[in-house]
Amino acid sequence: MTVEELAEIVGGHVFGDGETQIERIADLDQASEGEIAYVDNEKFFATALASRASCLIVPNSEGFPDRTLIEVKNPKLAFAQIGAVLYPVRREPAIHPTAVVAATATVSSTAYIGPNVTIGEYVTVGDECILHPNVVLYDRVSIGNRVILHAGVCIGADGFGYVRHELGYQKFPQIGTVVIEDDVELGAYTCVDRAALGRTRIGRGTKLDNMVHVGHNCDIGERVVIAAQTGISGSVVIEDEAVIGGQVGFGDHTRVQKGAIIGSKAGILPGKIVRPGVWWGIPVQPLEQYKRMNAHLNKLAEMRDELKQLRQEVNALKQAKS
Amino acid sequence: MTVEELAEIVGGHVFGDGETQIERIADLDQASEGEIAYVDNEKFFATALASRASCLIVPNSEGFPDRTLIEVKNPKLAFAQIGAVLYPVRREPAIHPTAVVAATATVSSTAYIGPNVTIGEYVTVGDECILHPNVVLYDRVSIGNRVILHAGVCIGADGFGYVRHELGYQKFPQIGTVVIEDDVELGAYTCVDRAALGRTRIGRGTKLDNMVHVGHNCDIGERVVIAAQTGISGSVVIEDEAVIGGQVGFGDHTRVQKGAIIGSKAGILPGKIVRPGVWWGIPVQPLEQYKRMNAHLNKLAEMRDELKQLRQEVNALKQAKS
Amino acid sequence: MTVEELAEIVGGHVFGDGETQIERIADLDQASEGEIAYVDNEKFFATALASRASCLIVPNSEGFPDRTLIEVKNPKLAFAQIGAVLYPVRREPAIHPTAVVAATATVSSTAYIGPNVTIGEYVTVGDECILHPNVVLYDRVSIGNRVILHAGVCIGADGFGYVRHELGYQKFPQIGTVVIEDDVELGAYTCVDRAALGRTRIGRGTKLDNMVHVGHNCDIGERVVIAAQTGISGSVVIEDEAVIGGQVGFGDHTRVQKGAIIGSKAGILPGKIVRPGVWWGIPVQPLEQYKRMNAHLNKLAEMRDELKQLRQEVNALKQAKS
Repeated sequence: MTVEELAEIVGGHVFGDGETQIERIADLDQASEGEIAYVDNEKFFATALASRASCLIVPNSEGFPDRTLIEVKNPKLAFAQIGAVLYPVRREPAIHPTAVVAATATVSSTAYIGPNVTIGEYVTVGDECILHPNVVLYDRVSIGNRVILHAGVCIGADGFGYVRHELGYQKFPQIGTVVIEDDVELGAYTCVDRAALGRTRIGRGTKLDNMVHVGHNCDIGERVVIAAQTGISGSVVIEDEAVIGGQVGFGDHTRVQKGAIIGSKAGILPGKIVRPGVWWGIPVQPLEQYKRMNAHLNKLAEMRDELKQLRQEVNALKQAKS
Repeated sequence: MTVEELAEIVGGHVFGDGETQIERIADLDQASEGEIAYVDNEKFFATALASRASCLIVPNSEGFPDRTLIEVKNPKLAFAQIGAVLYPVRREPAIHPTAVVAATATVSSTAYIGPNVTIGEYVTVGDECILHPNVVLYDRVSIGNRVILHAGVCIGADGFGYVRHELGYQKFPQIGTVVIEDDVELGAYTCVDRAALGRTRIGRGTKLDNMVHVGHNCDIGERVVIAAQTGISGSVVIEDEAVIGGQVGFGDHTRVQKGAIIGSKAGILPGKIVRPGVWWGIPVQPLEQYKRMNAHLNKLAEMRDELKQLRQEVNALKQAKS
Repeated sequence: MTVEELAEIVGGHVFGDGETQIERIADLDQASEGEIAYVDNEKFFATALASRASCLIVPNSEGFPDRTLIEVKNPKLAFAQIGAVLYPVRREPAIHPTAVVAATATVSSTAYIGPNVTIGEYVTVGDECILHPNVVLYDRVSIGNRVILHAGVCIGADGFGYVRHELGYQKFPQIGTVVIEDDVELGAYTCVDRAALGRTRIGRGTKLDNMVHVGHNCDIGERVVIAAQTGISGSVVIEDEAVIGGQVGFGDHTRVQKGAIIGSKAGILPGKIVRPGVWWGIPVQPLEQYKRMNAHLNKLAEMRDELKQLRQEVNALKQAKS
């Protein structure tokens, strides 16, 4: 495609030769002829000037004379959009012959179902979904449109619920369902458990990294982002647009409010409400509070020294008085 | 089934119309005709009174006049037992045609083996087992009766053992086995590694959530419960009836005694013995001790202020004296 | 094989009957006729003397009169090497009929490809590799020689990269590749994500345990060891011979220098450089510093008592003065 055409897609302004052909995207320092790269940080302007890319996406054309440019407010976003055009994620619709699809399942004719995928009874899979190898959809779960499930994603396994009695554990019924809404992407081996009763939900546009565990009856909102290996106990509510780091652990029945950002490795006690703002630590606390606490901790050696010193001086004063 | 029949199964006492037909279980606030719900907490008695369930399972019939009831000591347990009757977990015995079962493996004729399951050489799988899609049983492991393995459970992969030498790492032989006893349930992608020599064991009635890692030569007792993403290093012993939260990490050769409860995200140093009681934190400590420590930490700002104040007063006293 | 032959393989010195036949390896206390065991710790010399093994591998022949011995500097290493000879890991080269191998992939004729493995377009798999069931190799990744991938290892899934805009998240292109070098072993369900641009690398001789997550564009060096459930964000560099515990979390763009050892459950903030030495805690710090901090923490109760005492004494002094 030409620079002109790409600029139109991203709503950018062309400087230089709009007829330049672009075939690939590349990093600034790796780019060569026929490639487009982006720069959004002044730190890398020198690298950009030295880049052999045929076109640069820049936040401001000034400082790049004699180059073919697309000027746009958010160069990284424009680069990603151009990447999506040049390297479409979409796959030819198909159901791989090794996939096992129940007769009662409804799979859109525009979906791609990869090797060794298992689709259970009464499952629905929407338009333009991509299910990578070994995805497992247990019975009666529902997958929206344009959902991408990476290798081994498991939707609808039984939630972890038992009732203790004298002889051991009685399995609590896990007969609810799971709803994955449109435009969700789930990383490899991420598991979303079936609700005990009712449903577990992953909201529209939400993105989960690899090996995330979502327990039964969770309600994850729209445009939520969760990094790898985070674990979410049963009946947790995460409201829209929360951003959650990796290896975070949620106790059951916690609620994360819209606008909350939770740092990696945080631990949230059962029933906690996490309000908007940045949160950190085990147990989770506002980042500012966490930092103050850490500053205090770094003074502990000094505090002990001061205590010793005061003790001596007080002893001396008492001595002098007697 | 009738309320009368269900009451008999759970050893409960019927109030109202024992001939009422029950077809499904439901949550109190979602229930409608033909459904049974339970209440075990006074907080929800009002919801129960308003419920449209055809039958309520209650701890005490008083306060529910004109309703069809099953009165029983543990309503949640009774509900779970009734759920197990109305929604049997059991599957029709079958070996899915896509499953790969070694000629030397012994699979009970009452087991269900799902799609794309792999069963290695000399494996045994007991009666009424359910192996969900993509379960992998490496060679020579043994699975008891009524075991449920969720999608992708992996039993018998090599333990993580190497010996360092000048040029790198020599793999330590991983030629032992794994024994999964009766009535165990393992969550999706949970891995139980083969022993180096000897065996790794998961005891009768033990339940593991998704993505739990059990290292080589571990001995997990009976009726143990372990939540998602917990990691257990090699040669750890967990005695019967321990309860362990999610994302806990065990160093090798630790021992958890019967009656111990370990909170989520705890970290246990290698070789540690965890005695009965409730444990918390990294490194793990008795919950009470952890709470005291936290109380002290919350006083740090105050302590620093008091130190400053004392310093001033002591300086003033010294000044006055001189 | 005879003791003489085995001794030659490990460069050891034979005492006793070198013609003794050895068929199996075993633990000291379990060994019987035809088996070889090792002891490298004086604590177990008594057990070794009582062992019924036909041959002992020992660091020093003194103290084991009348026994058939192999004396060698590192008995555990010799035992592992002998185990590798008696129980070769190598499998008969084969591609299991249920494996799905793209027509454009290049798989060495000496590799073993297990059941339900998926190998994407333009993948290469080197000599004597072993791919256990359900391994997934996405398109265009490269696997060296003698690589062992345990069940469900996933190489080349999309990295977790998005650009936020007003309406949600735009997927950042994930069009790079993954290179797994020679002699790497990866545990069950370990995931190595594809680079956004460029490549993700696992260096020669590196060993990863189960369920490790390696993000896009990471560069893991040679002979690195990483225990289970550790998570590595994007663009992390881990230099040769680092040793990393389980459940560690790495923020993006961190660098671990050669010779660093990081304890289990540590958390490393984005951009951090971890220098040689032993590191611990969240956030990670030198082990010695962590221990000092812990010692201070254990004095907090005492410090608060001392503060109270000083307060009283200072008040008394002030009182006396006035």
